Amino acid sequence: MSDYQRVLLTGAAGALGSELRKSGTRLGKVVRLSARGPCENLAPHEEDFPLDLADFDAVSAAVKGCDAIVHMGGQALEGPWQTILDSNIVGGYNIYEAARRHGVKRIVYASSVHAIGYYERTQTIDGNVPTRPDSLYGVSKTFVENLARYYFDKFGIETVCLRIGSSFPEPTDRRHLITWLSYRDCRQLVEKSLSAPRVGFMIAYGMSNNSEAFWDNRTAAVLGYKPEDSADDYRDKVFAKTTQGDPNDPAVRFQGGSFCAAGHFEDENK
Amino acid sequence: MSDYQRVLLTGAAGALGSELRKSGTRLGKVVRLSARGPCENLAPHEEDFPLDLADFDAVSAAVKGCDAIVHMGGQALEGPWQTILDSNIVGGYNIYEAARRHGVKRIVYASSVHAIGYYERTQTIDGNVPTRPDSLYGVSKTFVENLARYYFDKFGIETVCLRIGSSFPEPTDRRHLITWLSYRDCRQLVEKSLSAPRVGFMIAYGMSNNSEAFWDNRTAAVLGYKPEDSADDYRDKVFAKTTQGDPNDPAVRFQGGSFCAAGHFEDENK
Amino acid sequence: MSDYQRVLLTGAAGALGSELRKSGTRLGKVVRLSARGPCENLAPHEEDFPLDLADFDAVSAAVKGCDAIVHMGGQALEGPWQTILDSNIVGGYNIYEAARRHGVKRIVYASSVHAIGYYERTQTIDGNVPTRPDSLYGVSKTFVENLARYYFDKFGIETVCLRIGSSFPEPTDRRHLITWLSYRDCRQLVEKSLSAPRVGFMIAYGMSNNSEAFWDNRTAAVLGYKPEDSADDYRDKVFAKTTQGDPNDPAVRFQGGSFCAAGHFEDENK
Amino acid sequence: MSDYQRVLLTGAAGALGSELRKSGTRLGKVVRLSARGPCENLAPHEEDFPLDLADFDAVSAAVKGCDAIVHMGGQALEGPWQTILDSNIVGGYNIYEAARRHGVKRIVYASSVHAIGYYERTQTIDGNVPTRPDSLYGVSKTFVENLARYYFDKFGIETVCLRIGSSFPEPTDRRHLITWLSYRDCRQLVEKSLSAPRVGFMIAYGMSNNSEAFWDNRTAAVLGYKPEDSADDYRDKVFAKTTQGDPNDPAVRFQGGSFCAAGHFEDENK
Amino acid sequence: MSDYQRVLLTGAAGALGSELRKSGTRLGKVVRLSARGPCENLAPHEEDFPLDLADFDAVSAAVKGCDAIVHMGGQALEGPWQTILDSNIVGGYNIYEAARRHGVKRIVYASSVHAIGYYERTQTIDGNVPTRPDSLYGVSKTFVENLARYYFDKFGIETVCLRIGSSFPEPTDRRHLITWLSYRDCRQLVEKSLSAPRVGFMIAYGMSNNSEAFWDNRTAAVLGYKPEDSADDYRDKVFAKTTQGDPNDPAVRFQGGSFCAAGHFEDENK
Amino acid sequence: MSDYQRVLLTGAAGALGSELRKSGTRLGKVVRLSARGPCENLAPHEEDFPLDLADFDAVSAAVKGCDAIVHMGGQALEGPWQTILDSNIVGGYNIYEAARRHGVKRIVYASSVHAIGYYERTQTIDGNVPTRPDSLYGVSKTFVENLARYYFDKFGIETVCLRIGSSFPEPTDRRHLITWLSYRDCRQLVEKSLSAPRVGFMIAYGMSNNSEAFWDNRTAAVLGYKPEDSADDYRDKVFAKTTQGDPNDPAVRFQGGSFCAAGHFEDENK
Repeated sequence: MSDYQRVLLTGAAGALGSELRKSGTRLGKVVRLSARGPCENLAPHEEDFPLDLADFDAVSAAVKGCDAIVHMGGQALEGPWQTILDSNIVGGYNIYEAARRHGVKRIVYASSVHAIGYYERTQTIDGNVPTRPDSLYGVSKTFVENLARYYFDKFGIETVCLRIGSSFPEPTDRRHLITWLSYRDCRQLVEKSLSAPRVGFMIAYGMSNNSEAFWDNRTAAVLGYKPEDSADDYRDKVFAKTTQGDPNDPAVRFQGGSFCAAGHFEDENK
Repeated sequence: MSDYQRVLLTGAAGALGSELRKSGTRLGKVVRLSARGPCENLAPHEEDFPLDLADFDAVSAAVKGCDAIVHMGGQALEGPWQTILDSNIVGGYNIYEAARRHGVKRIVYASSVHAIGYYERTQTIDGNVPTRPDSLYGVSKTFVENLARYYFDKFGIETVCLRIGSSFPEPTDRRHLITWLSYRDCRQLVEKSLSAPRVGFMIAYGMSNNSEAFWDNRTAAVLGYKPEDSADDYRDKVFAKTTQGDPNDPAVRFQGGSFCAAGHFEDENK
Repeated sequence: MSDYQRVLLTGAAGALGSELRKSGTRLGKVVRLSARGPCENLAPHEEDFPLDLADFDAVSAAVKGCDAIVHMGGQALEGPWQTILDSNIVGGYNIYEAARRHGVKRIVYASSVHAIGYYERTQTIDGNVPTRPDSLYGVSKTFVENLARYYFDKFGIETVCLRIGSSFPEPTDRRHLITWLSYRDCRQLVEKSLSAPRVGFMIAYGMSNNSEAFWDNRTAAVLGYKPEDSADDYRDKVFAKTTQGDPNDPAVRFQGGSFCAAGHFEDENK
Repeated sequence: MSDYQRVLLTGAAGALGSELRKSGTRLGKVVRLSARGPCENLAPHEEDFPLDLADFDAVSAAVKGCDAIVHMGGQALEGPWQTILDSNIVGGYNIYEAARRHGVKRIVYASSVHAIGYYERTQTIDGNVPTRPDSLYGVSKTFVENLARYYFDKFGIETVCLRIGSSFPEPTDRRHLITWLSYRDCRQLVEKSLSAPRVGFMIAYGMSNNSEAFWDNRTAAVLGYKPEDSADDYRDKVFAKTTQGDPNDPAVRFQGGSFCAAGHFEDENK
Repeated sequence: MSDYQRVLLTGAAGALGSELRKSGTRLGKVVRLSARGPCENLAPHEEDFPLDLADFDAVSAAVKGCDAIVHMGGQALEGPWQTILDSNIVGGYNIYEAARRHGVKRIVYASSVHAIGYYERTQTIDGNVPTRPDSLYGVSKTFVENLARYYFDKFGIETVCLRIGSSFPEPTDRRHLITWLSYRDCRQLVEKSLSAPRVGFMIAYGMSNNSEAFWDNRTAAVLGYKPEDSADDYRDKVFAKTTQGDPNDPAVRFQGGSFCAAGHFEDENK
Repeated sequence: MSDYQRVLLTGAAGALGSELRKSGTRLGKVVRLSARGPCENLAPHEEDFPLDLADFDAVSAAVKGCDAIVHMGGQALEGPWQTILDSNIVGGYNIYEAARRHGVKRIVYASSVHAIGYYERTQTIDGNVPTRPDSLYGVSKTFVENLARYYFDKFGIETVCLRIGSSFPEPTDRRHLITWLSYRDCRQLVEKSLSAPRVGFMIAYGMSNNSEAFWDNRTAAVLGYKPEDSADDYRDKVFAKTTQGDPNDPAVRFQGGSFCAAGHFEDENK
């Protein structure tokens, strides 16, 4: 059981949030769930706390009484600027500022491959490379990473930023053979990010034990993350269903995949 | 005379903006000035275009017809979150998105030492180190740097981010002996950032030819910046008026100076 | 089965070439074999195309109709300069220039430990270190690596340079415990170099899963190479048959082994 | 059986020394044991040679006739300066200078995590980082490492410095989950450090196959160290018996653990 | 006056060769000139020795009796493969192999920016980056650099590879403002490369004291090269005569300039 | 005038110590001189305090009342081990431990090129490279550097380690053209090391503005050291009096010069 008394889980109704609820009290003795609407099927250690991330007072009330936060909430794909701004940028600020006011000690933040999506597929990067976002969504992820760095340097709030690849039930395209993070491995990463004795400000990449890799997780070695799943088990299936693609297509060439091939959201979604 | 037909200068009424107007047609054949209110004493090559950076339509109208932008506008100090958000984050987005829509080729952006203010004074850093902002203001500077990186990688708009130290008439404290950027050298940096044949996405530090240095500008060597002034000329004067300070004071220990010693703006300015 | 229609395999009659034929249609739907003389025992997906690598017209004819090349041919040991020049340097140029003329998309090139043989045994190197050839043979390998870099940068032809250690049936000396690449792992490396969605210009080291290592293959992590064999299984056998050697003997001190202890070929083979 | 004729093992009566005796003739055909007093239960290949490391003549006599040394002796914890000076600094010099005079070829030296104890827990370091000792004990370890570097560069005596983490029967606190080196793995490290064909001057970290890690052993990859034990097997047990601790406690924050939290030995032990 | 008894200067009739003759006995007490045809206006310390670099016996005869070589000869621009092969590759081998046979101690080699021409203009590189040639000419330069590395590592012949930018009477385009090497500075570089007490294998970039720079010459700092000229003096003149260009034109984007914009020589010169 | 009340200058009777006395009150309002015997010609701001560095009580008495120390004392050349041990190792410990007990804030330590003397002349190194001492003297310098690192990390005492090259009246051999530090520049380095607002633990190389260089002082850029002298002014004179030497002589090949060519002191001085 976790050493934390109460942990806030944002985005609790989303795909990853729902999976993380399965970690049970390995997250915290009490897990407070937040989403836009109510969460269902509460376990005894869970409490529900619906909110809009863009509303500072609501966020502050949800954070009060928690000693850690798992921040999975917000817009999880490219979207209109106003949505990115409200959910991810203002929402991110609200989380960190509420954490400061209420003495939260540690935050685990769901960052994304899209914070560094414009590195080439053939580059192997670690957690110290300059960010290269591939979308406004990716820019918003770098914003919260910087905010986390600031709140640690000035106020001592620890954060692990998990740059999550592709966390789905299973890999379905050739890029997923690299970026796939199984739900089980995602839970392990979050649990270890919470229980590690000290994390300071840390960036860890979220991928399973896939032979193909973009990322070198050495800078996060102290977390002790040891993935149990591998996209390799899906390789033949994925190869059978897909073809090789054009190496010069931005969706193939860059780590961010199709996000790099897309134009500006509002142009494309008029 | 510049090769650009029309350059937008934001923040044209501020201290640096006013100095940059002295560059005249070395910025552009026409220089469009923007500030919250009207600018005065227009030269023949200048045209006035007051606007609120948080207003996308106004920004878009100002950008239309320009082939380059010198973006000095926005909140230039720590301030309330809402101000940082409106002026620097939303304002920064408005500039870049308007630039994309109107085919602007290059932007020179006034970033700041406060984007990396939490590096220790004894560390020598270059333009590739991870950002470490020292304030919400500093976080907003990293936001625009990431936005610029994105708009270059996806849309090809070039940016030079100038991480300006302390651009004042003269150095007045011992940290300024390191961070001072004379107005003349600031003008040179902006002019060369505009006229360099290619800049891609580049980060350059803005300091004069000071013997004491935090920064290694080699990654921006192609700009050919060759400062003409030096804080060294003020060393004796500054030493005579100041004392050595406590090396453990955050204002002494970190590159961001007093920004690192301050708490959260809204706590301190209730 | 490979996505390539037709792959040219040079050096098809050599030890590695013969092993690679076992990959069958995992190389290409059709595999065109080339060696100085005819190849035997053709499988249904194989076609024979004997040639002299130094003859541009012959190479060009062999390359025509192929969409990928596995270039294992040429002089595989130190030899007289004229042989190195004709087989490896002129031969290498002929392969790349023919590939350009006939629209070949990707080449897998058998480079060698001897391209970096003068690194010390105690240095751990990756694919980005400056080359340090240990022989004229090694110099010829760096020549083709540079040629490959050029043909990618200018003409977009992708290459994986495999710096193969010691690909033999089994390790027979203590240095092989480090450099050994089993035939099975060699086939895997070539197959993955062909099937990876994008390789650009990449250098990968060819060694099995040996505990002792000179090389760090992280820069080639995206290939997903996962060796199945290990020289460790031969450690006791090799130790029993060999003695420790003099650590100052160039054959022990440097990664290139006995190539570093040899003098100039023509001096020693008069 | 080792290729060495006679190996001197200092500190042979200590915890690690006793464990290393179990390596038997894998250390040397004859193993000469030294400790302050006599060693017991000598095996046929062992000979006893008690001595005081601070006595050059005694050390010289013990070294004579050996072709390698495993130097585990000296003060193994923080202690009074005079003890550190006599046992570790003077003792270290005596070992190296005697080795030079008697033609010893290789030394395996028990350095320590405390040579780099002031790196933060969240930093992943390799063998090339500048030393940051956390105690006078740690400073004495860096002294011998530098001495070893000198005796290799000038006199060609090879050394492997093993920066040993926590070599105990099993991990008992959360930091040990990172630093633990099982006795079995310790023996392997020493054996491979002796039998590797060439080591020059090398630094290797001594930890078992623990998922949590401070250290990157790539610079020692040629040793072929392949740990067989893991602190992971003790994780649940350790977590059950301990609580999370304060991430700002120097004993948690820094790699050296409690050594970093202690003051000056003589102040604290008056 | 030089400490060398006799120095061979190849390419003595070319533009740079002619300039280097002005160094007089600062090159060697005797300077042996070689070019395809005879050299004119011999000074008392000069002797003429015309030869074809592709003819080993002629090269060997020219090298005999020399203790150093300044190798400026060969094809100095992109050309047909056969010319590059004969003049630069075979010619380079002939120089080094003759040097080995006749005991030459040091070679100064005119390498070129075109050995690394595919780095972007905005990248600042030093002498250790992987090569990225922009032409067959550039590939031939990397060939001789590797040959030089090999002849130093195995046979102890020292080489300084000078990667010369644009050595012309004066800069004439905007890229020259970066790459220009005045004749006077070129002479200094060659003289210091000869007179430095030890150079091993070294790469130095050949540029004058230009404010705009691609290159960081720190790895060659021991040469003590201190340029006396600067392209800055020509900046206004060059800007007046040229326009800004398209930053996406390969001739602007890459360090190699127009070589990067050209296709394959034989395609373009049918 | 310095901000320090009282500065202890050890080695005050040595060549550098005598020169540093010329800095007068730029060192401290009072300068306490220590040497083995009495110092002469005391200025009004000077006080004399002879001592033996190996005597802790004497050192402690001298340190009492000082807020900074310039530690130039001890054995300044290779010597017998016992001398190195007493003067430099025990002496160094005595200085730091006395500083801790008496609340000294900052120490400027005269380290030496001999701490890194086994780097090759052709390597350009900065202050972060691993140490490579060339003598027992050099090992003692690395000992004090590590001690300083420890006393800063644990007790907050700041140190600037000055790795001084060759501080003599003028350069007299070709290596001095690289390593020379004029007395005037040495004084500036010490003065700036004292007056810099924060130095933490820092390593700076001590050389004048010589064109030839082994060292990159960027990691000490914040000191603002700006040398006023240059060995270049002596180049012709030195060249006229010396010959080129053998590049394979250790005295030429390595940065430590003749220290690298010497054997063990006690062997050579029996």
